[in-house]
Amino acid sequence: MSTQRQLKLGAMVHGVGHGWGEWRHPQARPNASTDFGFYKQQTQLAEGAKFDFVFIADSLHIHEKSSPHYLNRFEPLTILSALAALTSNIGLVATVTVSYTEPYQVARQFASLDHISDGRAGWNVVTSWLSGTADNFGKAEHPPHAVRYRIAQEHVAVVKGLWDSWEDDAFAYNKQTGEFFTPGKLHALEHKGEFFSVKGPLNIARSRQGQPVIFQAGTSEDGRNFAAGNADAIFVSAEGFDEARAYYQDLKKRAQGFGRDARELSILPGIRPIVGRDATEVEDRYQQAVALVSIEDAIVALGRPFNDHDFSQYPLDAPFPELGDLGANSQKGGSDRIKQLARDEGLTLREVALRFSQPRRDFVGTPEQVADAIEHWFENGAADGFIINSLLPDGLQYFTERVVPVLQQRGLFRSEYSGNTLRDNLGLPVPANRYARPVATDAAREAVA
Amino acid sequence: MSTQRQLKLGAMVHGVGHGWGEWRHPQARPNASTDFGFYKQQTQLAEGAKFDFVFIADSLHIHEKSSPHYLNRFEPLTILSALAALTSNIGLVATVTVSYTEPYQVARQFASLDHISDGRAGWNVVTSWLSGTADNFGKAEHPPHAVRYRIAQEHVAVVKGLWDSWEDDAFAYNKQTGEFFTPGKLHALEHKGEFFSVKGPLNIARSRQGQPVIFQAGTSEDGRNFAAGNADAIFVSAEGFDEARAYYQDLKKRAQGFGRDARELSILPGIRPIVGRDATEVEDRYQQAVALVSIEDAIVALGRPFNDHDFSQYPLDAPFPELGDLGANSQKGGSDRIKQLARDEGLTLREVALRFSQPRRDFVGTPEQVADAIEHWFENGAADGFIINSLLPDGLQYFTERVVPVLQQRGLFRSEYSGNTLRDNLGLPVPANRYARPVATDAAREAVA
Repeated sequence: MSTQRQLKLGAMVHGVGHGWGEWRHPQARPNASTDFGFYKQQTQLAEGAKFDFVFIADSLHIHEKSSPHYLNRFEPLTILSALAALTSNIGLVATVTVSYTEPYQVARQFASLDHISDGRAGWNVVTSWLSGTADNFGKAEHPPHAVRYRIAQEHVAVVKGLWDSWEDDAFAYNKQTGEFFTPGKLHALEHKGEFFSVKGPLNIARSRQGQPVIFQAGTSEDGRNFAAGNADAIFVSAEGFDEARAYYQDLKKRAQGFGRDARELSILPGIRPIVGRDATEVEDRYQQAVALVSIEDAIVALGRPFNDHDFSQYPLDAPFPELGDLGANSQKGGSDRIKQLARDEGLTLREVALRFSQPRRDFVGTPEQVADAIEHWFENGAADGFIINSLLPDGLQYFTERVVPVLQQRGLFRSEYSGNTLRDNLGLPVPANRYARPVATDAAREAVA
Repeated sequence: MSTQRQLKLGAMVHGVGHGWGEWRHPQARPNASTDFGFYKQQTQLAEGAKFDFVFIADSLHIHEKSSPHYLNRFEPLTILSALAALTSNIGLVATVTVSYTEPYQVARQFASLDHISDGRAGWNVVTSWLSGTADNFGKAEHPPHAVRYRIAQEHVAVVKGLWDSWEDDAFAYNKQTGEFFTPGKLHALEHKGEFFSVKGPLNIARSRQGQPVIFQAGTSEDGRNFAAGNADAIFVSAEGFDEARAYYQDLKKRAQGFGRDARELSILPGIRPIVGRDATEVEDRYQQAVALVSIEDAIVALGRPFNDHDFSQYPLDAPFPELGDLGANSQKGGSDRIKQLARDEGLTLREVALRFSQPRRDFVGTPEQVADAIEHWFENGAADGFIINSLLPDGLQYFTERVVPVLQQRGLFRSEYSGNTLRDNLGLPVPANRYARPVATDAAREAVA
């Protein structure tokens, strides 16, 4: 019955992890990224622990040097639709790009997932940063960074417009008169913009959430403004508490600048907790995770935000190379952050690569210690919750079985779901349809008459 | 243990049916097209009866006059992914257009569905005939009929190429050496064609079927050639036995002309059986179906293959109007057929409209009578099986509970699944990967040495 502010928790599910070497762990199933049984088991673990959502990352371009977790994996909307059939409360968040998709198709597939799951769909909006993606979609060039965010702004606006095609009470279903829907409650969007021209209406009813939830992960200037203006929840990776807190404060302020209630924007750092029963097991599991990161893999991973730049050409133990504008047109926020860290701390290439690939110590410890760290971030303006991005094959199981009960005992996390849509989980209202007229009251009717 | 040739059976699942008025049946759930429970129940009925597959139709453009079953429905790939999680043997066939999609995305979503379902995905390739579709995808014009089939040819070739990106044994999973895949077994397609430019490779492993099964429904000259050259199974609607037989013979011959084994092309007319226990129930159920078709709806339905042409402008009881080229750029095969029938039989507009909307008598009867009709078509060169497109809300249930056992008793249909992929169900081999080299035998190695 507490009205205490509570944590939001998501689980990133991706078969062979997030790093180059995680598939080499002795317990890892190397084919997990296309193993439906694995996705089912991880999602059911997360739902059993009353998580708000599962989250599926994505990208659309691979080559021979790509990490195992990019090379072979499920497409997000199909795998989440399958998981929808086996779950009942947990949110289902799919990463889908705006740079290589049509708004009509995106609006439709998310609306369909929202109907299938009865209100649990979320869209993580990304702009795609690897320029090679253009080659898979017949585009002469990958759009520059700033253009991608203009595309994102328009794409999301069109999708949201299409989601309102049908008013909530549009369907009359009158078998006697044959009136299937009420004329005037179906709306064509008639959008003509800089990048998209979409007439509508969408061929699926408004779903239970009204609109699926919007996630984003902007860290560049353009990305932060886009996220603050459009997202219901933000996924961010942070280098420790201070960076997370600065980001949190900045994004909440920007959201208010857009006239929004900052409480309706959840900021959720992605963390990689490593949990052990005691100090010995903690250190053993931490060392297992460290052992999965080779310097060769770390160097390749470092290239990714720079459009898969080849860092193996530079000396490992010399100062981090001068890169000029490299990365500004790829993952701008991420690559800027790497350059700045190297500059600020005077690091070598090896040090930078390992810093970003090796597991951090922030959320490593016994269940109580990890819960303490989570509580610290949550209570001190650095997070509204977290996306758990497990490092070890049994990482999510350890977290849900050991850390979640501690968070529940402290009243920081729910013990039961209080609703069964993603909006319910995140405490977000169902937005009114843009075309809906307020219901006339008797008094209002009299005033008009 | 019989090696007798057996029927193939698919179930078309669409909430409020295939016609304008089916939602008005007293037992119809008017929201069935976005009711996951309904899709689940229908699919489980079909799987319980050992059907080969369920089939989801589609289109991408609606307006205020569109039929209820177009206005609001699930997107095929998402709903079939959800159904995959709840079934284990039945094939899952999704209709997806080539005219408004990117081959990379189509290849990926079908491959993902094939992995999720462990080998049960099928793609019904359509070209979209409503010109208004262009307005939802920012295209200046809807491609003309012949161009759409050139697009289809190239699109399908690209998708099939992408499905071969990874050889079947590409993944080495060697945790000791760190070799995730074997170099040389990942292939970029490097396609540059008239309509598409797609580099590849695809970011998902080859699936259990090697390639998902291709369905098509071509009736125009271009459509027939495309289907005969590319499809594993053809869905066709036929005006009675003679037309079905002529189509069957023509398509088998064309398939041979493309150098194919005609037995690997299944021709499956869509039929709308109405089944009753006895003559009284048969007639009662037939009249229920007739009552669902108003002349107004039939006139609107008739317009659809002619790009939603408004036939209400013509006198109902005058001879069918002269339409010139109308329809040739829309559903060419279907609209030509309507014009020819009107001409050949000297029909009025009313007669033509009712002929195509009212239930036919071919598959109306007691279980034995319907089984007789099915057997007649099957044994006399008109069909390799059927797609059951139920007219009444309980139509699939009547068919599976009453007609299927008769077909099984006659040895015409399986009583148990003998495999668990769609290819297994249809008796289709897994195609070899285009890049795979034959395995060298000792003898061959010696011959080379």
